[in-house]
Amino acid sequence: MAKPSSRAPALADWQPPAGKRAASFRLKDIDPAAKPWSSGDKALDVAAVEKLAVELDGLQNLLYADRRFKVLVVLQGTDTAGKDGTVRGVFARTSPLGVHTVGWKAPTEEERGHDYLWRIHKAMPGAGEITVFNRSHYEDVLVPAVNQWISADVVAQRYRQINDFERMLTENGTLVLKFMLHISAEEQRTRLQERLDDPAKRWKFSMGDVEVRKQWADYQKAYQSLLRATSTEWAPWTIVPADSKTHRNLMIATVVRDALKKLKLRYPPGDPALKGLVIA
Amino acid sequence: MAKPSSRAPALADWQPPAGKRAASFRLKDIDPAAKPWSSGDKALDVAAVEKLAVELDGLQNLLYADRRFKVLVVLQGTDTAGKDGTVRGVFARTSPLGVHTVGWKAPTEEERGHDYLWRIHKAMPGAGEITVFNRSHYEDVLVPAVNQWISADVVAQRYRQINDFERMLTENGTLVLKFMLHISAEEQRTRLQERLDDPAKRWKFSMGDVEVRKQWADYQKAYQSLLRATSTEWAPWTIVPADSKTHRNLMIATVVRDALKKLKLRYPPGDPALKGLVIA
Repeated sequence: MAKPSSRAPALADWQPPAGKRAASFRLKDIDPAAKPWSSGDKALDVAAVEKLAVELDGLQNLLYADRRFKVLVVLQGTDTAGKDGTVRGVFARTSPLGVHTVGWKAPTEEERGHDYLWRIHKAMPGAGEITVFNRSHYEDVLVPAVNQWISADVVAQRYRQINDFERMLTENGTLVLKFMLHISAEEQRTRLQERLDDPAKRWKFSMGDVEVRKQWADYQKAYQSLLRATSTEWAPWTIVPADSKTHRNLMIATVVRDALKKLKLRYPPGDPALKGLVIA
Repeated sequence: MAKPSSRAPALADWQPPAGKRAASFRLKDIDPAAKPWSSGDKALDVAAVEKLAVELDGLQNLLYADRRFKVLVVLQGTDTAGKDGTVRGVFARTSPLGVHTVGWKAPTEEERGHDYLWRIHKAMPGAGEITVFNRSHYEDVLVPAVNQWISADVVAQRYRQINDFERMLTENGTLVLKFMLHISAEEQRTRLQERLDDPAKRWKFSMGDVEVRKQWADYQKAYQSLLRATSTEWAPWTIVPADSKTHRNLMIATVVRDALKKLKLRYPPGDPALKGLVIA
């Protein structure tokens, strides 16, 4: 049995640099099969994820009572990258009272009649809440950019608009945690084939996924451009090597847990008038 | 009877300059009793407003059919400045189908649990719609700034957030028209007294207005700072001399009409398949 690694991995190594150094970031330098957060033992990792999920429940409860902050978790990744599995694995123990998930689909006619951030802003967490986005406003850059429905100028404009929007959110008390679930083309092939072959998974398969898979290289390029442009000081991206589902959950749960801990959450101070009150 | 003035007034003279020259703008240089858009004859002006209201109805109908644009009209001003009267006088003829009015009050608990732009963004017009704000997100800077609930740094931060937000809106097809209804302290005194003395107007009177009136000088200063900081190329402020209600309506209706005309609205091109179709 391999020993747990002696030092914790550095989160910054998995985040594209913000600002001028962003251009040096290359997505292909990150190995989708890496397991930096793993102990080296799968059973131990699974147990660790379970422990983290319980820990997250406690922190979420405290966040809800505290009400000073709101938390947005963005999950992005190609088809089969594991966005649903992350929601299930990481937020399995938290209360639906304070944790909401939004799975973004193609916009409705009413949504298309507004700017693309309109429906996103509406869905933002309120005080004390955690909202998990399965896909997000980043789809409004990725998909039209890859399909060349918008010009490079509009792509750049949207990057700026999103950065401004997320800065406003963080300045007004929202912690923005963005995860890019990074899998290999080979891993996607395996997972799509599984969906086809397993009757219990076939409902998740869509012929559209096969079409999008043909654009794999274009999407990787679009992701790299997006990660360079929108990994900011106030809302950095974390690239999660996600060929291993257990590692993916372990890494995301750890990063979310650590970020919540940094908020120094506390139960609100009691009303002094209540001190010593005895209920008759 | 005075002749209509021979040349149209220049709108730019009533808009604080954007960018570096903004610091030269002084609110007190603008006479609230001025009537630059007036013909000099009140009856003619009243008839002109009525004609403009009908013209706006036609343009709104075209905007609704066209669906390429959305229009936001922001009305700001101290108590009794005439925000309700503007809605009534300028948008009296347009269809409620395409024109919505939102009167902003103090935020609810749910709204306070989000960033201050959350409820504003939700209320934005959709494609082909006009939304008129009676008060707006600018109250979230004015009121806390005057009452010193937020620091100068946060005031500056909100100016930037609002400018970024409005830029995103305009880049995504929203025309943003902002009017500051400018009345004198003496005119406000007269109008508040009228509200007290006239049983049909008394329901509009609030003791709170008397308290806010004591902060007149502070509000004028806060307005000047706000007008300097948030009159941008993409969403300029227009200062409306509003001691005369007729002039106020005439000026605002003219500016909105001209702005809509500039959009070069058109009915959407028909489906070629429908050409020559005869309904049997």
